[in-house]
Amino acid sequence: MASVRIREATEGDCGDILRLIRELAEYEKLADQVKISEEVLRADGFGENPFYHCLVAEFLPPPGEPQERRVVGYGLYYFIYSTWKGRNIYLEDIYVMPQYRGQGIGTRIIKKVSEVALDKGCSQFRLAVLDWNKRAVGLYKALGAQDLTEAEGWCSFRFEEEAMRSLAGR
Amino acid sequence: MASVRIREATEGDCGDILRLIRELAEYEKLADQVKISEEVLRADGFGENPFYHCLVAEFLPPPGEPQERRVVGYGLYYFIYSTWKGRNIYLEDIYVMPQYRGQGIGTRIIKKVSEVALDKGCSQFRLAVLDWNKRAVGLYKALGAQDLTEAEGWCSFRFEEEAMRSLAGR
Repeated sequence: MASVRIREATEGDCGDILRLIRELAEYEKLADQVKISEEVLRADGFGENPFYHCLVAEFLPPPGEPQERRVVGYGLYYFIYSTWKGRNIYLEDIYVMPQYRGQGIGTRIIKKVSEVALDKGCSQFRLAVLDWNKRAVGLYKALGAQDLTEAEGWCSFRFEEEAMRSLAGR
Repeated sequence: MASVRIREATEGDCGDILRLIRELAEYEKLADQVKISEEVLRADGFGENPFYHCLVAEFLPPPGEPQERRVVGYGLYYFIYSTWKGRNIYLEDIYVMPQYRGQGIGTRIIKKVSEVALDKGCSQFRLAVLDWNKRAVGLYKALGAQDLTEAEGWCSFRFEEEAMRSLAGR
């Protein structure tokens, strides 16, 4: 029988991770913002002090089938710091290819992130979701997440490079 | 004349930083969520691989005055990772004591964060703000930040420890 396993990404997965990063950005209707390359992902995630960590969901075909193993989803996270609670995890991206949805793969990635967070002494983990992505919003709430934008009014702001240069006088 | 300088925090500032973290949480009406201690701030920010970095705004009294130097604001940040743009900065907290506002101290902290971000090769920095905090929202927008919750619909979600334990089966 075919199955899907969740495992830590290796450097050799970076091509697949980049493919899925692009798919996710397209789904989010923000594909023009993706500027990263496979080389940068390799260097930043698999050096001595990695800037991020990544889980991949790998499809394993039934024995004897001609299909190949395939990375069909990922969860990319890093450690952040709350001045209220200390060390925490931020799940930057979570994505499962459309044809592999409805099998609980996203839930398994979130469960694995919860395990890592508890193992590392984190008391919470955060993520961001687009308000129109009702499927994801519903999943996160069903799994016990709180919508802090709704509950407390938190809004995300971003300074882009141009604004930073102007502020820094460069 | 009295002046204010923005400098990198040292371990000896952690008592002041904790005092200001509590003031900020009270201002945000979320003071009950602060669980951190000075010891944890010292260990996490000033070891070999610090989990966060901090700038402090220090009030310097005029020469000959009996007043003491005083930490009157702070900006606490760490490095995050965007799958679109690579390494970035997240400004977790920024705070200036009420009696020192209106002098541009917050702006100077944000300028300093922009400089650090550019020096470290980051193409953006992010922060979160409560929607009712109109003064802060107005400042960030005036300095060139984009409200991503408004523009793109990003909402912040958080899994607390109880939800994580239930997901991890612990």
